[in-house]
Formats: sequence, C-alpha cells, structure tokens
Amino acid sequence: MGLVGGGEGAFIGSVHRIAAELDGKIELVCSACASDPNRAKRSGVEIYGLDPTRSYASFDEMIDGEATLPLDRRMDFVCLTTPNHIHFEHAKAALEAGFHVMCEKPITYSLEQARQLQSLVENTELLFGLTHNYTGYPMIKEARELVRSAEFGRVRRISIEYIQGWLSNLEEGTGDNKQAEWRTDPNRSGVAGCMGDIGTHGENLAEYVTGIKIESLCADLTTFVDGRQLDDDGNVLLRFESGAKGILSASQISVGVENGLTLRVYGERCGVEWQQMEPNSLVVRWADRPAEIRRTGGPGTSPQSIEASRIPPGHPEGYLEAFALLYRNYAQAIQDRKKGQSKSVTDYDFPTVYDGVRGMEFIETVVESSNRGAVWLNMP
Amino acid sequence: MGLVGGGEGAFIGSVHRIAAELDGKIELVCSACASDPNRAKRSGVEIYGLDPTRSYASFDEMIDGEATLPLDRRMDFVCLTTPNHIHFEHAKAALEAGFHVMCEKPITYSLEQARQLQSLVENTELLFGLTHNYTGYPMIKEARELVRSAEFGRVRRISIEYIQGWLSNLEEGTGDNKQAEWRTDPNRSGVAGCMGDIGTHGENLAEYVTGIKIESLCADLTTFVDGRQLDDDGNVLLRFESGAKGILSASQISVGVENGLTLRVYGERCGVEWQQMEPNSLVVRWADRPAEIRRTGGPGTSPQSIEASRIPPGHPEGYLEAFALLYRNYAQAIQDRKKGQSKSVTDYDFPTVYDGVRGMEFIETVVESSNRGAVWLNMP
Amino acid sequence: MGLVGGGEGAFIGSVHRIAAELDGKIELVCSACASDPNRAKRSGVEIYGLDPTRSYASFDEMIDGEATLPLDRRMDFVCLTTPNHIHFEHAKAALEAGFHVMCEKPITYSLEQARQLQSLVENTELLFGLTHNYTGYPMIKEARELVRSAEFGRVRRISIEYIQGWLSNLEEGTGDNKQAEWRTDPNRSGVAGCMGDIGTHGENLAEYVTGIKIESLCADLTTFVDGRQLDDDGNVLLRFESGAKGILSASQISVGVENGLTLRVYGERCGVEWQQMEPNSLVVRWADRPAEIRRTGGPGTSPQSIEASRIPPGHPEGYLEAFALLYRNYAQAIQDRKKGQSKSVTDYDFPTVYDGVRGMEFIETVVESSNRGAVWLNMP
Amino acid sequence: MGLVGGGEGAFIGSVHRIAAELDGKIELVCSACASDPNRAKRSGVEIYGLDPTRSYASFDEMIDGEATLPLDRRMDFVCLTTPNHIHFEHAKAALEAGFHVMCEKPITYSLEQARQLQSLVENTELLFGLTHNYTGYPMIKEARELVRSAEFGRVRRISIEYIQGWLSNLEEGTGDNKQAEWRTDPNRSGVAGCMGDIGTHGENLAEYVTGIKIESLCADLTTFVDGRQLDDDGNVLLRFESGAKGILSASQISVGVENGLTLRVYGERCGVEWQQMEPNSLVVRWADRPAEIRRTGGPGTSPQSIEASRIPPGHPEGYLEAFALLYRNYAQAIQDRKKGQSKSVTDYDFPTVYDGVRGMEFIETVVESSNRGAVWLNMP
Repeated sequence: MGLVGGGEGAFIGSVHRIAAELDGKIELVCSACASDPNRAKRSGVEIYGLDPTRSYASFDEMIDGEATLPLDRRMDFVCLTTPNHIHFEHAKAALEAGFHVMCEKPITYSLEQARQLQSLVENTELLFGLTHNYTGYPMIKEARELVRSAEFGRVRRISIEYIQGWLSNLEEGTGDNKQAEWRTDPNRSGVAGCMGDIGTHGENLAEYVTGIKIESLCADLTTFVDGRQLDDDGNVLLRFESGAKGILSASQISVGVENGLTLRVYGERCGVEWQQMEPNSLVVRWADRPAEIRRTGGPGTSPQSIEASRIPPGHPEGYLEAFALLYRNYAQAIQDRKKGQSKSVTDYDFPTVYDGVRGMEFIETVVESSNRGAVWLNMP
Repeated sequence: MGLVGGGEGAFIGSVHRIAAELDGKIELVCSACASDPNRAKRSGVEIYGLDPTRSYASFDEMIDGEATLPLDRRMDFVCLTTPNHIHFEHAKAALEAGFHVMCEKPITYSLEQARQLQSLVENTELLFGLTHNYTGYPMIKEARELVRSAEFGRVRRISIEYIQGWLSNLEEGTGDNKQAEWRTDPNRSGVAGCMGDIGTHGENLAEYVTGIKIESLCADLTTFVDGRQLDDDGNVLLRFESGAKGILSASQISVGVENGLTLRVYGERCGVEWQQMEPNSLVVRWADRPAEIRRTGGPGTSPQSIEASRIPPGHPEGYLEAFALLYRNYAQAIQDRKKGQSKSVTDYDFPTVYDGVRGMEFIETVVESSNRGAVWLNMP
Repeated sequence: MGLVGGGEGAFIGSVHRIAAELDGKIELVCSACASDPNRAKRSGVEIYGLDPTRSYASFDEMIDGEATLPLDRRMDFVCLTTPNHIHFEHAKAALEAGFHVMCEKPITYSLEQARQLQSLVENTELLFGLTHNYTGYPMIKEARELVRSAEFGRVRRISIEYIQGWLSNLEEGTGDNKQAEWRTDPNRSGVAGCMGDIGTHGENLAEYVTGIKIESLCADLTTFVDGRQLDDDGNVLLRFESGAKGILSASQISVGVENGLTLRVYGERCGVEWQQMEPNSLVVRWADRPAEIRRTGGPGTSPQSIEASRIPPGHPEGYLEAFALLYRNYAQAIQDRKKGQSKSVTDYDFPTVYDGVRGMEFIETVVESSNRGAVWLNMP
Repeated sequence: MGLVGGGEGAFIGSVHRIAAELDGKIELVCSACASDPNRAKRSGVEIYGLDPTRSYASFDEMIDGEATLPLDRRMDFVCLTTPNHIHFEHAKAALEAGFHVMCEKPITYSLEQARQLQSLVENTELLFGLTHNYTGYPMIKEARELVRSAEFGRVRRISIEYIQGWLSNLEEGTGDNKQAEWRTDPNRSGVAGCMGDIGTHGENLAEYVTGIKIESLCADLTTFVDGRQLDDDGNVLLRFESGAKGILSASQISVGVENGLTLRVYGERCGVEWQQMEPNSLVVRWADRPAEIRRTGGPGTSPQSIEASRIPPGHPEGYLEAFALLYRNYAQAIQDRKKGQSKSVTDYDFPTVYDGVRGMEFIETVVESSNRGAVWLNMP
C-alpha cells in the first residue's frame, strides 16, 4: 500500500496504516504524505517509519517511482486520504498507471467526477475500494443479515442519525484545526459540509444494511455557525423504493456529542438498533418476546458477523478493527486477482465505486433539495 | 374530582385516580365511568370504591347530581378521560355548570372545537387543565431551566422522538383492544392517529422545555398496517420561530419499542438529552468538559426540579409521580381560587387550554402538510 | 391506617402514606407523628391533612383513642416508622390492643426483641408486615420466578450490593440531618449502622428471590468516617445452605452513589441481574443465546410480575409503586380476615415477622463476625 | 519480536501479533508456535505469514537460530504465550541468551519460579514485560491519575470484579476447547484456575490504579462444576496497607457474562467506576455535584489518558488497542536501551517482573487462605 496524504496533523493517515496492516495481509510500503515536498518526505519516514527512498516528495513521484519497481516489490494499491477535491485526479492517475485504489469518502468533489471515475474503474477493471468504514462493524453485519431475513418482515421505518459537536464553534480560520479548515471549505470539500462528511456515511449504512434504495428525499440543511460557508446540520425525510419511510439527521453542532452514529430499522415483526459508540451490541426487538442484546462474537449471531470479529466476546473491538475489515476484504480481492481468479468486485464485502457514486448522488440531491426550499426530489 | 370515563378495560382511569390522589390534595368523589349506565354504575363502585350514590349512570346525571350538593361536598372539577370526540361536549357542559375541568389530550376532536373551548374557558374564568403528563417529570423541569439559561446559549437543534410498537399489527377490529379500537378510528380520534395520540405530546414537550414555538413544518405521515384508517407513523421537519431547526418523529409501528419518548436540545454551548423510560437522568453535554448526569433530586439541580420530586435521589420516581405533579399544581390553583386569590392560570405550572389549542393546530397542520404531499406549511 | 412517626423532616412518613393509599385499598385515618405532643398534633393536620381529633399527641393516645371508636371507623393497623429502638414497644402495645402492625425495618433494636415480637404475633394471630419494600418491584417478582424454575438450574453464585454515599462525611451532630442522627446512634439504631439500615435489605432480597438461606458468613465491617459510632461500610462472604456462595456489600460512604442496590444470581444455565435504580429491566443471561431484557409488564414475563405492575410497559414504575405493592397485599390479608378467611400469613406476598427475625439474626451475626476479627460464623 | 506459542486454535497469538505491531514500532519476525515441530513450522507461515526460515520448529531452535543472525536482523525479544507451566523455562533461556522477554500472565507456574525469574531479570538487566493488558486502557490511566490526586481524598473502598461464564459447563476433556483444557489443569495452570487466570488481573489493576498494596485477605474459592480440578469462582475480602478495604470477585461460572471486569474505587470526596466492556467511559462521582462521564480522548481528561489514545473521542478503542499500549511502551524501552539510555524499567508504564511476582504472591495467598477454611492471611 502507498499512502497519499496523512502527513503531520492528519489523524486519518495513521488510521489507514493501522487498519490496513491489522490483519497482517497488507503492508504500508511507500507514501506521498503532503503537498509540500519536504514535509512529505519527512512525514513518511518519521510517522510511518518508511524507507527514505520510498517516502516520496509527491504523488507523481510515487506513481513513477513505484512503477519502475519490479512487480513483486511495488505497491499494489494507493490509499487516498487527502481532501475531497484531489481524490479524482489522484485516483485517475493511479488507475491509469495500473494501480488499484482505496479512497476516502466522499469519493470525489462532485457527482460528475464520480461518474467519470466509475467509467474509469470499469474500463481498467482495477479494484476500487471506498472507506465507508462503519460497514465493517460485526454488529452491522449482524443487522444486515437479520433485516434481510424472513423473520424480520418487510422493512417499514429506517432512522439514521449521525451527530457530532466538534464544529459547534467557528474552528476554521483559526489555524488550529486542519480538519475543520478543509471540511468547511467549498473549494475543497464540495457542495456539502456536514452532509458530505458524515451524512453520506449514514446514507451508505442504511442502504448497506437494508438493501433498499432511497427513492426521494426532502432535506433541510442549516449553517448555524456565523462565518461558516457550508452546512453544519441537516435533517432529511426519506422515502425508499420499497415503500419504507425514514429520516436521516446529520449534525456537527450537537455540542458535546462525540461521534453519535445510530441506525435503527423496524420491520413488520422485528426491529434492530445499533449505536457506533457501543458498537459491540445490537438490540433486537420483537413484538411478542423480550428484546435481545446480540453481541459481537456472542451466541445466536450469524456466521457473517462472527467472521468479522477477531477476539472472544466481551473483548471490545472498535473503530480500527471495523476499519480493518474493509482492508481485509479488499486484500482478499487483490490476492484473488493475483491468483487469476475473476470474481466480481461486488462478490466481496467492501464499498466500491458504485457506493461512491451513490454517495455523491445523495449529496447533490440533498443540497439541491435544501437550496430549493426543502422540497422533495427524486434520487437520480 | 369526578371521573368521566375510566370504566372496565381503560387503564387510564386508574392512572388519573392514582395521580390525582398521590399528593394528598385531591380525592376522587364521584364518577361517570362508561356510556352504558349499568357498567358506569358498577365501575365506579368496583374499580374506584365509590359510594353507589355518587357512581353515576351518566355524565349528565353526574353534573346534575353534584350541582345539587352543598358546595363543600360537591366535586370541584371533572376529569375527562373519554375518547377525543366526546371531550368538547363534556367540557362545555361542565364549564357551563360551573365546574373546573381536567382533560386528556388531545383536547378535542378538531381545532375548531378547541378554539370554541378556549373562548368558553376565558369567559367562565374556570380552571382548565390538560394532561400532557410528560411535562411533570423533574428532569423535564431541569431541562427547561437549563435550556432557558444564559449558559445554554441560543437553541439550535431540537429532536423529539416518540416511538412505540403496540400498533405494529392490526389490533383494531379484533375486539381485544379498546385503546386500539378508538384511537385508530377517525370518527372518535380525529384527523390524526399516531400524531394525535403521541406526536402531540412531543410537540408540547418541545415547546414547554424550550419556550420556542414551531413556525412551520413539513410532515410525511404513513399508514403502514393494511386496513388501518389513520396514520401510524410519521416524521416532521420543524422550523422554529427563533431560527432553531428540528425534527419530530412519532411512530406506533416501531415494533418492540414500549414508550420511547426522547427529547434532545442542543444550544450554542450546552446540550440536554432525556429519555422517558429512564426519566430520572438528564444528560447534560458541554463543549469543553465531560458530560454530566443530573439526577432527580440530586446535587447541582435546580429548585424547580427538586420541588417536582418527592423522595431522595436514587429512589426512582416514574410515570405516575410525573402525572401527579400536574394534579398537584392544578389542586393548588383550585385551592387558591377558593381562597379568593386571583393569579393567572399561566402562573401555575400545568398545561392549559392554550396548550390544547396549540396541540390541535399542530395536528391539523401536520395532517394537511402530509396530505398535500409533505409540503411546508406555517403553523396558524 | 394509623401512622406512627413521619413528622416534620421525616420523608419516610409521606412514603408510607402515598404507598399505602396508592392502590385505593387503604386510607390514612390517624397519626401520632412525633414525640413532642405539639409537633405530633401539628404534623398530622398539616402534613397529612388529618382531622385534628385524630391527629394524636402521642402513640398511647392514638391507641386509646382509636380503641374507643366503633370497629368500622377505627384504624385497622398501625404503621411504625420511628427509629428502631421504639419499634418493639409500640408493636407490642398495638398488638396487645388488637391492632395489626406494619413496621419499618429492621424490625427491632435487638434480636432478642424480635424473637419476643414473633411470639406475640403468633399468640395474637394478628397480621404483622415489614416494609422490605424492594421485594415489591415487578422485576424482583420476575427474578424470583425464574430463579426458582427448572430452566435456571441450581443456583451457584449470589451477589448483593447495596451502596450509597450519603454518609461520606460526618452528617450526624450537625443538626441538619435527622436521618443521619439516629441511624448512626447505637442507642437508637442497634448494634449495626449501615448493615442494619441497608445490608439487611440485601439479605432479605437475596433470600426472597432465591429461596435459599444463608448458612454461614464472614463479615468485615468498617467505620471510615472519624467520629462515627457505627459501621458505615462492610463486605460479607456468604455460604448458603444449598452450597451456593455469595457476597454481600453494603456501604454508605461510596461517595456520589445514590441508592445502588443490585442483585445478581447465576445458576447452572441462566443468570439474572437487577438494579434498583433502573428497576423496570431484568437482564436475563444464558449460555447459548443472547441476553434478554425482560421489562415490567412486557412480553415473556410471568403472571407474578405482571400482577405486580399497574400501567403499560414503558411507563416507568418506581419506588413508591413497589412500596405500594406490599401494602396492596397486606390490605388483601386484612380484608380476608375481615371476611373470616383463615389463610396463613405466608400465603400472602409481603414480608412478615419471620423476615424481621431473620434480619436481626443477620445483623447480629454480621456484627459479631466482624468484631471477632472477621471470622466465619453460622447463622443461628 | 519472536512469538512463542500462538499456533492453531490459540486466539491469543494473533492478539499479541496485532497488538505488538499496531503502533508501528514492532514487527513479528519469527516464531516457535507449537510443541509439535510440524505444526510449529506450519503455523508461523500460514497464520503469521513468516518467512519459512524463521518459522522455527521449536523454542530452542528459535533461540539458537536468532542468536546467529546479525544484531540488526535478529529479534529483539521473545513473546511467551504458552501455558503457565512453560513460562519459566522459556523466559530463563531467552534471558540467558540475551533476549528481552514479554510474557503472558500469570508470570510462572509458582511463586518460587517467579522469584527466581526476578533475580534473573535483575542480574541480566534485560527488559521483562508482563501482559496485564487491562492496564493499557486510556480510562484506566485516567482513573489512576484521579485516584492519586488530592481532590480524590484518601481511598476507602475498592471493588474489583472479574466475572465470566465460559466455564459454566465442563468444557475440559471434550477436546473442543484448548483454552479450557490447560487452564483447568493443575499441571499446566498452577494452584489456581479462575483466580490465576483472571483474579490476578483484578489484583494487578486495583494496585496499579490506586498505588495501594493489599495487606491481608480472606478468600473463599469454589469449584462448582463437577469433575473440574481447580477453582472456577471465588470471593476475596481485602484489607489494604493504607486502611482501605475492598472485595475482589472472580468467576468463570457466571453464566452468560462475557468478560465482566469492573473496577470501582471510592475515596473521601470522589469515586470512579470503570467497566471493561464499555472501556471508553469512566464514571466519576462526587458528593456535591452531578456525576461526570469522562471519555477516552475527551475534554477534561488527563494528559496520561490522552496519550494512551490514538483516535478522536467517540471512535471506540478496544481490547487490542489497550493491549497495544503495553507494547508501545515496551518498544520505547527497548529503543531507549539501544540508544544507550539507562532509564529504570519502572520509569516506563508497562507491567514488569515485579508485577509478576506480586501476582503469584496473590495467587498463592488466596489459595492457601481458601484451603485453610477461608481464613485471613497476610500477603508475603
């Protein structure tokens, strides 16, 4: 793996390094950590302990440098952790140079770019992964199996909430918070702030678990903090293709809330409730018997969730382990490719370019709905 | 107190009896428990242990009978616990006969009736209370004080959720469930089902705690259960007069959920989170220090919440105690009247006819919004 | 009911009044609220709204006064809420005057007195109830049924913890805290402080739920606060007659803890966990399937727990409702007596004089064990 | 790092591999995974992806093989994850060959061996780490700082509970459960079963957090499951050198409980409560203000706990991350040694041979106390 971004001050670079290596199938071998060449070279060595010759000064150098290495030594894929507006350019270059790509969400700056990228991925037949990392939790796998089972009944109500408080004040412009800086900047983030950063996780998770697509939506976005350029809070009414209804909330001004991602789905006979901050429990509700608490790796859980777990029940797995699961499945796909196996990318359980396009459709529809006065719009 | 309704099979009658008497200021002295005269007379004696002479066969008999008693022996007020469509008629008759009225929510069958009732109350200058009982919880008082304090900052985001699962199947028409029977019947319940029964609690609680009025809303209501005539689920986008935004969900098909009323309010500097099923805790969140758990009667709480509590912290108070608080305050108002004090009804802390009108405005606006395709409408 | 004690500053008097009257079967008709005659008379009128003629100046006056009333007007039983050292004298006098007795725990000042009282109760054949109120919670009934069922398997491990923080400082001697004053005074409380006040609740609850008797114990009591005369913390190793083992902790210096009573029982195939501060949930654990959350009044619960509940699931019942259940069952026993039914006192579900004797045996054994260096002693 | 043990069926080998490598400071370079040479060689390659030349057939081969490699290529330390009875022999051999040692707990089969090992470590001046991994949780660091601060006041009460249910039935002898097999076998585990496996974690955690030593104890151990040879449940009364009192429970027959490690400490002015299954929260209680929930990485936490965390608050860290923290600190010590720095082993924050000796003292005292009838014994 070659890491793009993740220089000093960017916690997400280390997350990717740890997650990628956690299951012992991937090794970080090179990087292009920053736009400044000196900082880039320094970061690769100091933060990630890379060999100086493979801590590249720039993305282009990395692509060129790795391409000259023998096949068995060069990186297999690039991991893009830079701000959104650079994803497309780098992903395109990497794919054209023959490298697989793992990319942070949202996939691109715009839906238009996302669609171009989809074509490129389809044409190159390379493996494109997207780090909608919350899909990697074992209890999300458990929810997915249960919601799609007959005993659940038809899905009726889907609630997704992703609220945080870290942007309750104007953090951008202070110079102290690189994350806040670019995520609230329309030139780097795209048309949405909060909805792009975390709302899109919610959309992805809901569709991943239920397998039901959002058909239309009505979104009311707000920018609460004076001086901010993008939305920092929003609520979206959802209608799904199956007739299910729902609500998606995303907020970064819910002061004091850390990382409050919650998914609840209620069907005809069963309901599931999951909270990211206590990720190893899934509350399962029934009409006619007591609620159950299913637990990561615990009795009564599905093979799919057990396989996503590494340690015995009661030994909590967290964010990094869930993140790592995407990499584990992605590594499997790469390995299979090397062995000449021709499975489809959708046969593996990791988010792909299609999830990325879907996410951009959601973002652009949500923003347009809100801009037009919070009216109903169909998803493309 | 004279109880109207609350015959066999109606749990809410006993709730009113217990709540009214709990603080030792009110005594149930007579009743008209059912529409069937025999059942009415039997219920008053058997369920409530009333003297047979004051277990009346009908509402009219009760009004007439009590009016003939000397002032110091007759009931002071009637308590209306019948289905919605009868509230207006009974309230009107009671007021005209000079009795105060305590009434179940929603106040009437229609907004039109509610407004007439408001005039009647204003003209008679009698005391009209409405049992939005959730406002009686000590931690709701605590939230109210905190949200309105300077340290909270301007309110930004208000989330109200009231979800239940008891109508996940078609309970009506089975003959087993009197509650389900009339609450899903447009002739008795009004234009709304779930939104009238519990959504209106949410609206009342949000405005009670924050003191901010809903300005406009966009509601998407659904009837999920085949054969049902009224909404059993809905989500509402909210815009408040102050610029705050919010969301209100109400559902009776969230299978397995008992009585999931949750209120969360986030301001510039502080957030509060309360859940009715663990009513003695209020989570208070801050940007720059750990979350606190304020507890009924515990240290660091306001006089207003302490006064609403009866027993030491850690000895849980529940639904009946919260309900009783409304009666305690209402009894105080009656007592003050008897002493000739002329305080305004709004000087006491119990819901009034104005809350009732507001609730009907909410119900009718929500239903109209949804009927017109989930469009934005201003509250009247 | 005639209330003894419960004057100004004593919250427990109101608890008894509310609990006794809550289910509509008992009425407070007279009182002897305080040792000072004036305060006694005033309290009965002002706090409880009693008729001045039945707000007696002393216990003796009350017994005498009520005995002269016709049978259908006099009180049926006295309720003793005074400090421990007075229980015996009053209970004896009441029984001898032919009144039933409901008494606060611990039953008496000493085991010797408790045994005398047992004889007296047996001889008079009157009804003696003891307010081990925590047995009145619906989920305690649920635990009791489950633990004694075949599916639970033989009981192995019993953990009881009852911790509070209200005596973390020297409250006694300040004049501000009447409770602290007498509960820490060996002349009024007895040989134990914390163990008598709350440890004995734990002992009672454990034996009530499991039906298994403590056989021997080893107790290490401590007085942490300088200047205090009785224990304020203690831990007890338990061996039960069945071979089960356990631990009982009681503490009043666990700073910041409100009323932390927890019971957990693990058998061969099932475990139950209950916490008084969230009393409407019972966690049920199994070896081979997910844990269940059984809820007051909810699906899958026993008739015994459902009968102990009054309102629909999700409408929390609390301390007062649990307390009231003892009175409801006690009232039934009195009523049956009046009707000439000759059921045994143990056929009703309320704590009796036998629980009281058992509690005093526990207290005296625990204190002796600790005094002798925390050695093992058999229960008498 | 060279891994000893961790072959097929042993989950703990992967835990060590992941934990050691997680912070990017340590690399697994060789192994001796099993007693059977073929299985050993196969496991190293297949499970850990090692080069076949360094997947050794035996511990001795590994020591010999690595010793012949140049200093910059050979392993720095061995990691011992085998059953207890083999620890001493391997640790001794590794130290004598000049390798640092990281060792699973309990440190040895007997206290006698532990003391010998201590001498050996002192003589060789090599780095010996012990994986009492629960000390690595950020909120344990937070508790440690707070408990030792002036605002906490003198410690009074310490409760440690470590309960599990996985040995509720006779798992040993079935051939299905390697863990159960050796942990319940006195020839491999030592004199204690449950107390050695998990009770010792509790002892270590309590002393680590409070800095107060157990002075004497009284232990009642039980073997509940027929056919089992070692204790599977026990309760221990504790007296600490400072005058604090406490209780330690350990159980492996608490059916349905996964990994229930709980630590609670109450001082004069403050209390802390921590649960391993929700490790990112620390409840902090006060006498005169609401309880706080301190969170991993959150506001109001100490530098020590923040440093132990890797990702933003609300992104849960779990068991592997806590485990990794020991390795991170251990790696630092090794690195410092290489640079010639001469800090003391106790200047780093990881458990050492002294914790190991202490653990064996605890185990042997507990077992002796119980064997002699649950009598009080001083710790050596």
